[in-house]
Amino acid sequence: MLKLFHSPGACSMISHIALEEAGADFEPVRVMLAEGEHLKPEYLAINPHARVPALATERGTITENIAILNYIADRFKAAGSVPRDDAFEGAKCNELLGWFASTVHIAFAQVWRAARFTDDESVYPAIQQGGRQALEKHFEEIEDRCGEGWLVGDRFTAADSYALTFFRWGNRINLDMSRFPRWAALNQRLLKQQSVQRVIEHEQLGTELFRPAA
Amino acid sequence: MLKLFHSPGACSMISHIALEEAGADFEPVRVMLAEGEHLKPEYLAINPHARVPALATERGTITENIAILNYIADRFKAAGSVPRDDAFEGAKCNELLGWFASTVHIAFAQVWRAARFTDDESVYPAIQQGGRQALEKHFEEIEDRCGEGWLVGDRFTAADSYALTFFRWGNRINLDMSRFPRWAALNQRLLKQQSVQRVIEHEQLGTELFRPAA
Ligand SMILES: N[C@@H](CCC(=O)N[C@@H](CS)C(=O)NCC(=O)O)C(=O)O
Ligand SMILES: N[C@@H](CCC(=O)N[C@@H](CS)C(=O)NCC(=O)O)C(=O)O
Repeated sequence: MLKLFHSPGACSMISHIALEEAGADFEPVRVMLAEGEHLKPEYLAINPHARVPALATERGTITENIAILNYIADRFKAAGSVPRDDAFEGAKCNELLGWFASTVHIAFAQVWRAARFTDDESVYPAIQQGGRQALEKHFEEIEDRCGEGWLVGDRFTAADSYALTFFRWGNRINLDMSRFPRWAALNQRLLKQQSVQRVIEHEQLGTELFRPAA
Repeated sequence: MLKLFHSPGACSMISHIALEEAGADFEPVRVMLAEGEHLKPEYLAINPHARVPALATERGTITENIAILNYIADRFKAAGSVPRDDAFEGAKCNELLGWFASTVHIAFAQVWRAARFTDDESVYPAIQQGGRQALEKHFEEIEDRCGEGWLVGDRFTAADSYALTFFRWGNRINLDMSRFPRWAALNQRLLKQQSVQRVIEHEQLGTELFRPAA
């Protein structure tokens, strides 16, 4: 059986949602980042990079969200991952996943994990501040990409779940998320998906942070 | 016809190699990063993120290497991109592409493009130094992953081309690449592929930097 190693509210929720959406037979295994469980030898044996998500399969472990999501697409061909029936729409989804992982996510790492960039602690405030500035710009772009439907084509993909995760993180670092009404509306559509509801319930996230903070 | 926007020796060479390997009918269009051509309005109309690669298709433009590579896989099913006949091997390839793009590539950005992280110039040396330290660690991991064959399964994939590109960049920033003999041997196998030869010739890269500097 598949096992998903995840931490509540971390980017692993994107893969978690895709597995629920696929109706996959899988076991979610909690690795609490806040308690440093990802740094313990047991978890390093699963993912030496000490990150979530990781997906254990019959043939070995897969890390990196984008790899797990494309694997779920190949194996289950369900919504919430990456389109496989249309190469161009699949590419536009991977384009967003790639930009999110290599750019937007990195700006959050600047805010939360400045130590990844240097061990000179005196420059952490500058790195954190730079991350916040980058996020303001990236978040405007995400808002611009939101319309009446989904981010890619006419369907729910992993790009929507990734954006959902970022919105919550934006609230957590006190960005003013009320400037992104179309994005907030996308979240409301996502919250109607049973897969999303199940993950929010399982990861005990509540729904407040998917709306602009009051 | 497909058009690949690329800059000589940049990460766009990974997609360039995959298109050659696929025997695709495509036109390579040079966008010289060193001359700031990617910042001009003409190119921003193609990729507002001002990065290479970008692939123009009949239906629109695709950016992000990992998206272009998975698209080439879907469309041409050739070597040098991402395996599509085996979901697990495809995932292991995307795992490496994802890690390369979101972690190893970012460490190079710290060295070459510190301004991406903050506009406080006084901290650039710390960010650059942190990037070099991270690269030392990542490069040891790449060396450890190199065996007698290819990085993923028993075949040439885009993960090999990405590693080839990093090796050249390592030489360019004067890392001591002689510590990575297995990786250097992988490069020699790659240099025997006609697709790789054609790209090196077209991008006028020469072959010296794919070996440890003398
Ligand atoms: N590029 C990776 C990033 C994974 C990642 O950074 N995960 C975070 C949680 S969102 C993590 O595990 N952080 C723990 C740490 O940095 O110590 C992916 O897309 O899967
Ligand atoms: N995540 C992107 C990164 C693309 C990227 O950073 N490309 C570099 C060349 S290797 C670039 O265009 N840099 C120009 C700049 O940063 O101004 C991808 O994987 O395609």
